[in-house]
Amino acid sequence: LVSNSYAWAFKAEEPCKRLVLYYHDILFDGTDGVNATSAAATNATKLGNTTFGMLVVFDDPVTKDKHLVSPPVARAQGFYFYDTKYVYNAWFAYTLVFNSSEYKGTINIMGADLMPEKTRDLSVVGGTGDFFMTRGIATFETDAVEGIKYFRLKMDIKLYECY
Amino acid sequence: LVSNSYAWAFKAEEPCKRLVLYYHDILFDGTDGVNATSAAATNATKLGNTTFGMLVVFDDPVTKDKHLVSPPVARAQGFYFYDTKYVYNAWFAYTLVFNSSEYKGTINIMGADLMPEKTRDLSVVGGTGDFFMTRGIATFETDAVEGIKYFRLKMDIKLYECY
Amino acid sequence: LVSNSYAWAFKAEEPCKRLVLYYHDILFDGTDGVNATSAAATNATKLGNTTFGMLVVFDDPVTKDKHLVSPPVARAQGFYFYDTKYVYNAWFAYTLVFNSSEYKGTINIMGADLMPEKTRDLSVVGGTGDFFMTRGIATFETDAVEGIKYFRLKMDIKLYECY
Repeated sequence: LVSNSYAWAFKAEEPCKRLVLYYHDILFDGTDGVNATSAAATNATKLGNTTFGMLVVFDDPVTKDKHLVSPPVARAQGFYFYDTKYVYNAWFAYTLVFNSSEYKGTINIMGADLMPEKTRDLSVVGGTGDFFMTRGIATFETDAVEGIKYFRLKMDIKLYECY
Repeated sequence: LVSNSYAWAFKAEEPCKRLVLYYHDILFDGTDGVNATSAAATNATKLGNTTFGMLVVFDDPVTKDKHLVSPPVARAQGFYFYDTKYVYNAWFAYTLVFNSSEYKGTINIMGADLMPEKTRDLSVVGGTGDFFMTRGIATFETDAVEGIKYFRLKMDIKLYECY
Repeated sequence: LVSNSYAWAFKAEEPCKRLVLYYHDILFDGTDGVNATSAAATNATKLGNTTFGMLVVFDDPVTKDKHLVSPPVARAQGFYFYDTKYVYNAWFAYTLVFNSSEYKGTINIMGADLMPEKTRDLSVVGGTGDFFMTRGIATFETDAVEGIKYFRLKMDIKLYECY
């Protein structure tokens, strides 16, 4: 039992676990239901010209390498929406769902995807199963974009609290 | 003050607090505004056939036993949406709001509700008031379903960090 | 390395960091795209009479004093929605994005905004950059309301875990 009458401060220098993963998002265009992995639940508003307010729900495959056709090691289930007026900029909340021989459990992530930045950090706010109670940082980097149809993110998941 | 120059790892075997609660969701059908406790804010998309993208906002009663008519011990306020193409599967983010003689405060929860599984774990990511700064696991189990109109979840809230 | 075979309990009495900020939300009315900082991504449902289910996406300026025209010290990016039938009551999830000489990084926040209460506490669930891995409480207080067009919240951010 740790008893402490003041707020605490400490410094984590190295992750206790690290996962580098690729996230593939194929946005439904109304006709490609077989391949699509996400769909817009709301239309863009008329504020600005960069789809402000468009909210996309996804169940996206996550792979260890860049290839969309590689066997997924996890699913990413959640949503993102665009939230600025004149540049594309997004906000994510989602769960990485693992159900393989390697890992069983989930990692929960939320935060701003500041798309104009080369890399951007989101928060790992919890986990379950093999990732019980974990916390950390998920660093996004855009790895490929094909119009509005497909994009791929590199997600560098660094866990600093491991039970 | 705990000072630590590396990431930390430890193991929690028993919750410091546990709450077993029942969540009752009565979806608005357009006419039963008196009884309904939730409503779809978006329509389902045309991706798949299991209401992919339907987002439901709720202010649901939470009871200690299974009876909808029991006095609520909390409200659950937040949203869920369906996010897979061919099975029903959901994602939740919400707050348990307590305002009784027993507890005052909130518990914040998010994660995937993997409906095909008998039980599924979400993350307790924070709390306020009597649940100040708490973290833990919320285990969902479907307890009753009456068509699209009503469902009841057993929520087994296990808190592993208690201030 | 802290090794501990039971759940832990401790008490934080004073924040390790505190930020008092003002959040300004100017809701798009369809014509004022230059000034507006938020927009409704969904319409209110017909459940109740207090815009149940209306979800608003925002990219709002955050200032150190109450003046909308003061230079922003951060942006607040995320969403809120209204979730009760007969009173106005909301739920928020968002990121405070700092990019100044004083702070660089983000703070991630979620929870119920119980509007009938004078003050209400939400959870700080994570942070990045200068706020790496932080946790704490964000206390909201409504500071001004001008119809549906503008409101200002005082956000008293108290961080109890600082790395």
